[in-house]
Amino acid sequence: TYSGKFTQLPHLAGTEQNLRYAEQIKKEWMEFGLDSVEMVPYDVLLSYPNKSEPNYISIIDQLGNEVFNTSLAEPVPEGYENVSNIVPPYSAFSAKGQPEGDLVYVNYGRTEDFFQLQREMNINVTGKIVIVRYGKIFRGNKVKNAMLAGAKGIIMFSDPADYWAADVQPYPDGWNLPGGGAQRGNVLNLNGAGDPLTPGYPAKDYTYRFSLEDGVGLPKIPVHPIGFHDAVNLLKNMGGQIPPNNWKGALNVSYRIGPGFTDDFKSQKVRMNIHTDNQVTRIYNVIGRIRGALEPDRYVILGGHRDAWVFGGIDPMSGAAVVHETVRSAGKLLSKGWRPRRTIIFASWDAEEFGLVGSTEWAEDNTKLLQERAVAYINADSAIEGMYTLRVDCTPSLHTLVYDLTKQIASPEDGEEGVSLYESWHKRDNWTNDRDAPRISKLGSGSDFEAYFIRLGIAAGRARYTKNKKTERYSSYPVYHSVYETFEIVEKFYDPSFKRLQAVAQVRGGLIFLLADSQLLPLDVNQYADSLRKYAQSITQLAQKHPEEMKMYEVSFDSLFSAVENFTVAARDLHECLQTLDRADPLQVRIMNDQLMYLERAFIDPLGLPGRPFYRHVIFAPSSHNKYAGESFPGIYDALFDIQNSADPEKAWEEVKRQISIAAFTVHAAAMTLTPPA
Amino acid sequence: TYSGKFTQLPHLAGTEQNLRYAEQIKKEWMEFGLDSVEMVPYDVLLSYPNKSEPNYISIIDQLGNEVFNTSLAEPVPEGYENVSNIVPPYSAFSAKGQPEGDLVYVNYGRTEDFFQLQREMNINVTGKIVIVRYGKIFRGNKVKNAMLAGAKGIIMFSDPADYWAADVQPYPDGWNLPGGGAQRGNVLNLNGAGDPLTPGYPAKDYTYRFSLEDGVGLPKIPVHPIGFHDAVNLLKNMGGQIPPNNWKGALNVSYRIGPGFTDDFKSQKVRMNIHTDNQVTRIYNVIGRIRGALEPDRYVILGGHRDAWVFGGIDPMSGAAVVHETVRSAGKLLSKGWRPRRTIIFASWDAEEFGLVGSTEWAEDNTKLLQERAVAYINADSAIEGMYTLRVDCTPSLHTLVYDLTKQIASPEDGEEGVSLYESWHKRDNWTNDRDAPRISKLGSGSDFEAYFIRLGIAAGRARYTKNKKTERYSSYPVYHSVYETFEIVEKFYDPSFKRLQAVAQVRGGLIFLLADSQLLPLDVNQYADSLRKYAQSITQLAQKHPEEMKMYEVSFDSLFSAVENFTVAARDLHECLQTLDRADPLQVRIMNDQLMYLERAFIDPLGLPGRPFYRHVIFAPSSHNKYAGESFPGIYDALFDIQNSADPEKAWEEVKRQISIAAFTVHAAAMTLTPPA
Repeated sequence: TYSGKFTQLPHLAGTEQNLRYAEQIKKEWMEFGLDSVEMVPYDVLLSYPNKSEPNYISIIDQLGNEVFNTSLAEPVPEGYENVSNIVPPYSAFSAKGQPEGDLVYVNYGRTEDFFQLQREMNINVTGKIVIVRYGKIFRGNKVKNAMLAGAKGIIMFSDPADYWAADVQPYPDGWNLPGGGAQRGNVLNLNGAGDPLTPGYPAKDYTYRFSLEDGVGLPKIPVHPIGFHDAVNLLKNMGGQIPPNNWKGALNVSYRIGPGFTDDFKSQKVRMNIHTDNQVTRIYNVIGRIRGALEPDRYVILGGHRDAWVFGGIDPMSGAAVVHETVRSAGKLLSKGWRPRRTIIFASWDAEEFGLVGSTEWAEDNTKLLQERAVAYINADSAIEGMYTLRVDCTPSLHTLVYDLTKQIASPEDGEEGVSLYESWHKRDNWTNDRDAPRISKLGSGSDFEAYFIRLGIAAGRARYTKNKKTERYSSYPVYHSVYETFEIVEKFYDPSFKRLQAVAQVRGGLIFLLADSQLLPLDVNQYADSLRKYAQSITQLAQKHPEEMKMYEVSFDSLFSAVENFTVAARDLHECLQTLDRADPLQVRIMNDQLMYLERAFIDPLGLPGRPFYRHVIFAPSSHNKYAGESFPGIYDALFDIQNSADPEKAWEEVKRQISIAAFTVHAAAMTLTPPA
Repeated sequence: TYSGKFTQLPHLAGTEQNLRYAEQIKKEWMEFGLDSVEMVPYDVLLSYPNKSEPNYISIIDQLGNEVFNTSLAEPVPEGYENVSNIVPPYSAFSAKGQPEGDLVYVNYGRTEDFFQLQREMNINVTGKIVIVRYGKIFRGNKVKNAMLAGAKGIIMFSDPADYWAADVQPYPDGWNLPGGGAQRGNVLNLNGAGDPLTPGYPAKDYTYRFSLEDGVGLPKIPVHPIGFHDAVNLLKNMGGQIPPNNWKGALNVSYRIGPGFTDDFKSQKVRMNIHTDNQVTRIYNVIGRIRGALEPDRYVILGGHRDAWVFGGIDPMSGAAVVHETVRSAGKLLSKGWRPRRTIIFASWDAEEFGLVGSTEWAEDNTKLLQERAVAYINADSAIEGMYTLRVDCTPSLHTLVYDLTKQIASPEDGEEGVSLYESWHKRDNWTNDRDAPRISKLGSGSDFEAYFIRLGIAAGRARYTKNKKTERYSSYPVYHSVYETFEIVEKFYDPSFKRLQAVAQVRGGLIFLLADSQLLPLDVNQYADSLRKYAQSITQLAQKHPEEMKMYEVSFDSLFSAVENFTVAARDLHECLQTLDRADPLQVRIMNDQLMYLERAFIDPLGLPGRPFYRHVIFAPSSHNKYAGESFPGIYDALFDIQNSADPEKAWEEVKRQISIAAFTVHAAAMTLTPPA
């Protein structure tokens, strides 16, 4: 399989090997028969450990002697012993530095964890080094929280409570994270900016670059990730308060909060030794195209990243293999004389792991074309993160298409011959409260659809195979971003028959083919109306946790519900128009398709969300407190979140009201785009 | 004529009479045969003098006694003595207050005037009241400059040097400004925000409104306008330095700078008495539509304002009459079975005089529709400001259409029978340096095209009859914004045969008809390429006034010229494609038209110009120092301007480099939209 082919060597963004894979992909896509394939380079800020001065964390005694040091690398899995260029675990874009201080343990490092630490435990982390466990939220948010709280460094560790599945062996005997494994990852707070030095513009030769001090989202303190073997040594002697139960992980330590060590170890400190370098580096996207037969100016995009922290057995190559397979299938069809109505663009993105950089720079480079012409973006990151069922996150207008399509695909599960993927998925993950159908979730961020969906307002979706969320409580998958993400972990454990990957390929590829080739765009506007109603109800419920303030500050959601009602009627009318459309009239068809295509665009506010100019989708964006989680009405959500935090409640509620007004306006404006054009 | 009909009564925005005119226009447009006409209300911040406490300026003696007061109103012209509701001259949105202090005379109140005052004359205006003459720049910029300099009030007067034509009598015997006349006007610094309390969103019932303190562009100091009879009294006893020659107006006073009065009058101060109230007020746009036969989702817009400071004989009714006439003609054609290919929208805007508010709110309300669907916007403010020849300001892609059209229109000038408007115009105002053709200028701001062109990137233009700029040096026209702007001033002096107004109507109406009904959009992309080259050369020349710094900070315009070259090739290729286009294929025609339509949109930067989020056109915007003047590459222009002003030249030059990079990117991105779509 293609997955095997592109996972033998480490191919970190900006390295020679990742360029070689790009060239190979370009060559093969041309051979598959695409109309054009190009390499598109950008020069962006990346971050690598210093090869001569390794990063590690020490416990030091009174004299400054190192009495314990964390490991410099993960034990390399069997069969890969002779591989060079395995980058050790590190936090990309960490500040350099060697801060010393007492540790404070802050659970997952979430906003609410820091609130609890400061308000209930009365612990101030100013000048301390914070240690938090990985999981629950994006690591960049943890780092931001630590900085805001005044910490001078932050250590993140993988706790077995969060990265260990019950009754599973560590790799290579199973798919759990070994104690010596650790999670790499960038610790930026980009909020969609792409390359930190060229926010808003593609990082080309002539592009103005900010200085590092003015770069977007770069942490100002050292950051480092460790595995749980090392974590035990940092945590075991910690003193201070006993933690609340939900702060306790699964290690055999007390999880005391600190600051610092207990009794006998009081004089010991922790020192971080971080020498990671930021470096402007050339990256390469590979962009392939099939020209549309009738509407070459309408683009359907399948994109996924190629760069990997090490081998990328799961992330991203299980997904990149799906793109490769889709290109091959499309090439076969082309050779038989088929040509889609619309243009299809295939993308192999670079530097996703450094902040979605390759995909964002290309979106910036092509922003005008995409804004006017892009119909949909389907993302192809990791195709599998569990062995249970399908997981789909997408914009509401794609719900119906996903359901229709999955009814035509066979379940990949043993013993489900003759059962559709839809049925198999429905059985395992019903949407319970909302409706009797397989669950589809909101898009958050954390992969390459971000710029296309949240900045540009292009209908977008992603699909992968996943775990059983009800019973498997670990974060992502245990070996995530470790050296143990090999081809073999997929082949041996996740998908020995490769049927699950095939099913995911059928979903991703099927979406692309249907979006590119249907005469009428298969976008369901009624579904958007239904979703908007649910989101309005749910954000109202969140606000109603403060009934007195709602009254005192005269906060009302009426305008939002009225806009949703308006939208619902317009959506129904549009679908009625579609019934009677003269499909033989190419101009009429184009006009209706334009209305369908531009609906998602109508949710973009050019002013952006507060303080986040590149997050512009008023209906969907991550909250400011966790990049991974997609929130609906994120402006209102964040404003409500800030109420807990505000010294001036009146002002905070004014912002809630302002955000409600923006949401109502946006939904009204979107409804206008659905009514007959003149 | 329609102009006579709607100029009998004062119809200030927000007044009963202006609503009545709106209703009448709506009724007549329906009768003319438009498909639909609606009144579209918004509730926006307006500003009126307090009826019980008039605004005026006093000279006070040591005891605080008023020894001189400015007049409370202009002498009303004959025939209008019994008219009520004539608002006296005032500065709309002035802060309230009664500041007392010494006067300082600062010429036109331009940035360079304040520089000269502070740096060469060493005069600090902190705590002083500034007096400046009207003219050269937008009055809001004068007020902003005074505030930034620390003044506690600002008085603006009409100097005969700037509002008096040689050998012309004052009204009613001629068209000069009488000494008792004064110029009303708003003194906001909105930078395109529209209603100051709802920037970015339409001012509807549910819209969140900022407090007055947080409103956009509201001056924090009292402001008041006076005529030259009053000005003489304030200026005649001023002391201090003798002014440079170019600071001297045409009054029989010394124009000494101050601060304060001379010798015998040293103890006298000036007091401003300003009681003007801000008030959220309902305004009404009238929007009429003709549904397009084939492309109802493509909009061609003819819009102009209806509200007037008093009678609006010139501003705006000479233009509103043109719109009315165009609607009548269109109605006649409709009744004969004609229907344009595209939708035509006619707009009678309200509250233009209060900051382009009606047109901007409607643009905000319809932003998504306009962004996706608007082909062009033609503005219809005052149709005549002089008696010499045609004046056109428009986007470069409309140049060719304007030339072609004016060749088909007859010259309105006596003795030019058989001569075309083009020839007549060409003879009077040749584009000398640039090319042998009638001069067409860049769009600045100051009228209702602003939101459509500078915020949304819709191709736009305006046309009117104008004075001879080489010989007539006064600003705008002498009676501008005074009570003397009557119907009679047009009928008696400006256009007794109404042929000039007719010619302007033919230009404005002709543009609308050709844009709405041509199968291929009559937009010339090659002209844009030519203009971009000239603009790039001219901004480079401006920068080259600083050759040493250019070298020291490594400032290069190469990237911009390379982008322009790229654009030029793409434009040529597009026009070649148009030659061979299969015009019988409706989808092909639509695709090419989309490329033409969206070109102007490609120049929009969603991030806006620095500090001006609603000025988003990278090629055209007013400079930050004068809202009236359209600058090309305004981001670079302002950055270069700021160099004079910066304490940190390195940082200032970095900003120049950043702006060059943004301009180069934008031109590249626009070029991409011109190349074949896939």
